[in-house]
Amino acid sequence: MGKKIVMLPANEVDLSSVEYVPELVQAPHITGYLLKLVVQLLETRLIGSFYFSFMKNKNNVTQLLRNTSVPEAPMFRPEFSPQDPEVNVVAVEEDGLPTDRVEAALSCLPPHTPPTLPTLHSEAGIGYWKIRDYAQVYRSKLASPLIVAERIISAILELRVKKPQNALLIAFDPEDVRKQAAASTRRFEEGSPLSILDGIFIAIKDDIDCYPYPTKGGTTFLHEIRPLKEDAVSVSKLRSCGAILIGKANMHEFGLGTTGNNPNYGTTRNPYAEDRYTGGSSSGPAAIVSMGLCSAALGTDGGGSVRIPSALCGVVALKATYGRIDMKGSLCGKGTVEVLGPIASSVEDLMLVYAAILGSAPGNRLSLRPSPPCFPCLSSHENPHDVGSLRLGKYTKWFNDIDSTDISDKCEDILNLLSKTHGCKVLEVVIPELAEMRVAHLVSIGCECLSSLNPTLEAGWLTRLSADSRTSMALFRSFSGADYVQAQCYRRRIMHYHMEAFRKVDIIVTPTTGMTAPIIPESALELGESNMQVTGRLMQFIIAANLLGLPAISVPVGYDKQGLPIGLQLIGRPWGEASLLRLASAIEELCAPSRKTPPSFYDVLSTK
Amino acid sequence: MGKKIVMLPANEVDLSSVEYVPELVQAPHITGYLLKLVVQLLETRLIGSFYFSFMKNKNNVTQLLRNTSVPEAPMFRPEFSPQDPEVNVVAVEEDGLPTDRVEAALSCLPPHTPPTLPTLHSEAGIGYWKIRDYAQVYRSKLASPLIVAERIISAILELRVKKPQNALLIAFDPEDVRKQAAASTRRFEEGSPLSILDGIFIAIKDDIDCYPYPTKGGTTFLHEIRPLKEDAVSVSKLRSCGAILIGKANMHEFGLGTTGNNPNYGTTRNPYAEDRYTGGSSSGPAAIVSMGLCSAALGTDGGGSVRIPSALCGVVALKATYGRIDMKGSLCGKGTVEVLGPIASSVEDLMLVYAAILGSAPGNRLSLRPSPPCFPCLSSHENPHDVGSLRLGKYTKWFNDIDSTDISDKCEDILNLLSKTHGCKVLEVVIPELAEMRVAHLVSIGCECLSSLNPTLEAGWLTRLSADSRTSMALFRSFSGADYVQAQCYRRRIMHYHMEAFRKVDIIVTPTTGMTAPIIPESALELGESNMQVTGRLMQFIIAANLLGLPAISVPVGYDKQGLPIGLQLIGRPWGEASLLRLASAIEELCAPSRKTPPSFYDVLSTK
Repeated sequence: MGKKIVMLPANEVDLSSVEYVPELVQAPHITGYLLKLVVQLLETRLIGSFYFSFMKNKNNVTQLLRNTSVPEAPMFRPEFSPQDPEVNVVAVEEDGLPTDRVEAALSCLPPHTPPTLPTLHSEAGIGYWKIRDYAQVYRSKLASPLIVAERIISAILELRVKKPQNALLIAFDPEDVRKQAAASTRRFEEGSPLSILDGIFIAIKDDIDCYPYPTKGGTTFLHEIRPLKEDAVSVSKLRSCGAILIGKANMHEFGLGTTGNNPNYGTTRNPYAEDRYTGGSSSGPAAIVSMGLCSAALGTDGGGSVRIPSALCGVVALKATYGRIDMKGSLCGKGTVEVLGPIASSVEDLMLVYAAILGSAPGNRLSLRPSPPCFPCLSSHENPHDVGSLRLGKYTKWFNDIDSTDISDKCEDILNLLSKTHGCKVLEVVIPELAEMRVAHLVSIGCECLSSLNPTLEAGWLTRLSADSRTSMALFRSFSGADYVQAQCYRRRIMHYHMEAFRKVDIIVTPTTGMTAPIIPESALELGESNMQVTGRLMQFIIAANLLGLPAISVPVGYDKQGLPIGLQLIGRPWGEASLLRLASAIEELCAPSRKTPPSFYDVLSTK
Repeated sequence: MGKKIVMLPANEVDLSSVEYVPELVQAPHITGYLLKLVVQLLETRLIGSFYFSFMKNKNNVTQLLRNTSVPEAPMFRPEFSPQDPEVNVVAVEEDGLPTDRVEAALSCLPPHTPPTLPTLHSEAGIGYWKIRDYAQVYRSKLASPLIVAERIISAILELRVKKPQNALLIAFDPEDVRKQAAASTRRFEEGSPLSILDGIFIAIKDDIDCYPYPTKGGTTFLHEIRPLKEDAVSVSKLRSCGAILIGKANMHEFGLGTTGNNPNYGTTRNPYAEDRYTGGSSSGPAAIVSMGLCSAALGTDGGGSVRIPSALCGVVALKATYGRIDMKGSLCGKGTVEVLGPIASSVEDLMLVYAAILGSAPGNRLSLRPSPPCFPCLSSHENPHDVGSLRLGKYTKWFNDIDSTDISDKCEDILNLLSKTHGCKVLEVVIPELAEMRVAHLVSIGCECLSSLNPTLEAGWLTRLSADSRTSMALFRSFSGADYVQAQCYRRRIMHYHMEAFRKVDIIVTPTTGMTAPIIPESALELGESNMQVTGRLMQFIIAANLLGLPAISVPVGYDKQGLPIGLQLIGRPWGEASLLRLASAIEELCAPSRKTPPSFYDVLSTK
């Protein structure tokens, strides 16, 4: 029973009178054995049902899902009105060859000027090597992919025995890496590399198929029931460009968490502070790139899973527009919020890898009508970024609602710098109904995930999940079909508000996360953790891009007082990846002077 | 717990080896006080949860929703690939004036030859008057809309005091009808009728807004919390053509049943047998047309709600393509299976009313890409129907799976006649996974309906619902969000199978219902009824058009041994209404010699 609340149609809501309501998550922080006990209670029909009813009431979720009359029709997945084409870009054919797209992206980059000519004997710690640095080294025969492969293999083997354990990879086969590196080396010897990505080392998140590795999704059992025959579409595209796939990177089990905690394979540790999380769920991919072991990694992002760990590990990540990248061969690829996305240490590398993997599934195009994929021209020397015309939107109250002011201050500084150096306008926008947005996303991702896992869980595998995942499943089970439909009605409202904002601005800017890397509680390592406050902070600014399918980039902009990386998030118009890459590139350049590699950085191209 | 079943992708299923599985509904038939008691138990969290788990297991629903791994991505609402334009049709602008569209439809009809010149003093029982008969009478001043109005008003008032009660209308205001009729009469006197629909009497189902009547949706309370300011879009279109709206027709409460049982306002009785149901949920609309009181009626069809009662009452109904008709101003207009549709006594009248109301909501077009609406040219005298080129698909095992052979025999006869007289080819098609289709539809319509009603029910109105509706609500509550998503994966499969069938055939033919009008149990009149066996039979052939958004027509083809009407259903390609109307018109002509009006027919144009 509850009072009925009738919402105004979204287009009648007066945005000027919207009040900002900070998120207040009320849920216990539970770790270790207590969590294991609690989850068994939650899985019983009666206790679970009462507990979740109680918690949903307390957190206002029941009111939003059951007591509120929403005038909008459901929007079951992102629906975009046709978009104006982006300007000063190079458009590519999404059905074309990945190598052609990579070539087109390459042509958009400014001339390559390596900071120091990389040699195998340099002593200088020069930061992250870019893909074009590797390419130059390979083409000038200073090193071969095989030599670099050996360095990476020995670094990874070394890390495996180090204490405390830093679990980067769930599956790793040195022989498979050597085989790929040998083939790449042969291609360079024959003078016929496949693309700029030939010989470039890339890690694949464990929920994306990468033959011959099993896909476990961070669990202990999935490979036992899900035989794997081929690469995911995106992985096979990378392979066709000559990329060397080094193995399956660690992740939060089934992607069901944002810290990267994984009791099955160990928790990946933050390269900037080994007692802290990387963030997740793409914990391994972000850490591997942050540590310099790979140029890039593929992750998946259903609720910030590439952006959060990239922000916390000081690297760059792109969550492309929903439908932009074919999800075939990834777990949960049937959902409405998740996309596959690249992580890299620089914007130009991100763009090259994105160029290789983009291209929506043909079946998806029918209903999605994507604008053609394109890349920003960054190659003009006079105005290398052309970002001055971009109007940036900022919802100041939200932007500043962060416990530590380090994040908002740093992000604010960059916006000021952008205005000063490039002439960007920063305009105030209002995004109402943030609580509705959070609930709509939670219900959507939860029900979609549970739907695809149900047959497996019901067949007895539920008990093989970590306690953390089981808590999530019990929560997801408590959402009704009507709740799911209601969530989709909110999706239409939230889309409306964002499209309204995009009438005034080109890009919405937020911090990527509401906190920097959280501490790993000792008790959480072996049996996991449920901490909704941390989840809320990590996902605070993340959800619009998932619920609405908008493209978003996280770009590192500095460090907090403890030296932990801070990410700035750019949220773009539908299909507006090019503008995001353009702005991210400008921001990267502004932040370059203060950028640092983490303490655990491996310089696999030069010798240290 | 349950064994995991992994489905083959739909495009790998070998249709030649599909076995037909008859539906076996296992659920108790409950009426009256027992139903009232049972529903209160089902509404308790614990008993309801166990009861529905038990029943879903027994009926294989759990296996389909939780234990089956479906490779397809969800299709949340009908998605159509672009369709070839229909031939020999007149296309119209869906944004144009309703009067222009009605004019275009009129131009497609063969010349008007009234069976007998209708006069006010004719004694001949000549069957149904067509809209063009009324038009001729009005234009030739044999009668005015006001005179006809008085006849209809007195017939309705007479019916109100008749025993047993036959509840046709929930709201009826003679003064409002007289006012409209007077205005129409004035237009005829001035020689400026608005269209062929001017002065035509039309009833509106109680879940469609028709100012100034309240919209109750067949409940006792909805108008108390849902104030009404204007006509539904479709009603306002009819009004702009001069149609006279005679009131709000009876229906199954909230459309949640297929018999038309309504304890709140009385149950509409079948014009062919007063101890039998009309079918529903559009019980009043179908009966009013069947009885000759109105030329047409508007209903809604989320699970056969215009087709079932039309078949059982011997009239014609069109369920148009999903998105073809703007649902604004109807209850449950936000769902993915429901459309608004006309009921009439003849195909040409159906076409004229459809012409007035068609036109999708602008917001819907973006994602739906409708082919333009068009009408079949029926006016050529040489080949008035041009149906010889239509290939008809029949799934014989399904077609014949009916308790009484009267229905399948009669439908079969018509197909043979069509072949003989018009040269239509009847080809065998196979539609696999009928159980999956039923479950997907039930979960979809249930969760969507509950989602829109939840805020009202949670505010305490639940107990004002009939026991029948409360049972449905309790069932709908038991579906999880994951079930809903799983249902959408089935939707994609079922769409695939139908599109495969439509590669071979133009129209799929089935009986409209698997039984003729069911008996009304005495005990069900006051407190309702839950009879899933009857529901299953009535909906046996109905669901594809709703789940997949395909257009479908029910056309009367004869009577069973008890003299109860039998309907043949034609299911068309997406946006293929014109072909359906063309074939229905040919069938109507073939069946004309044996067509009878019901015992309770009112001849409001001539005097009897």
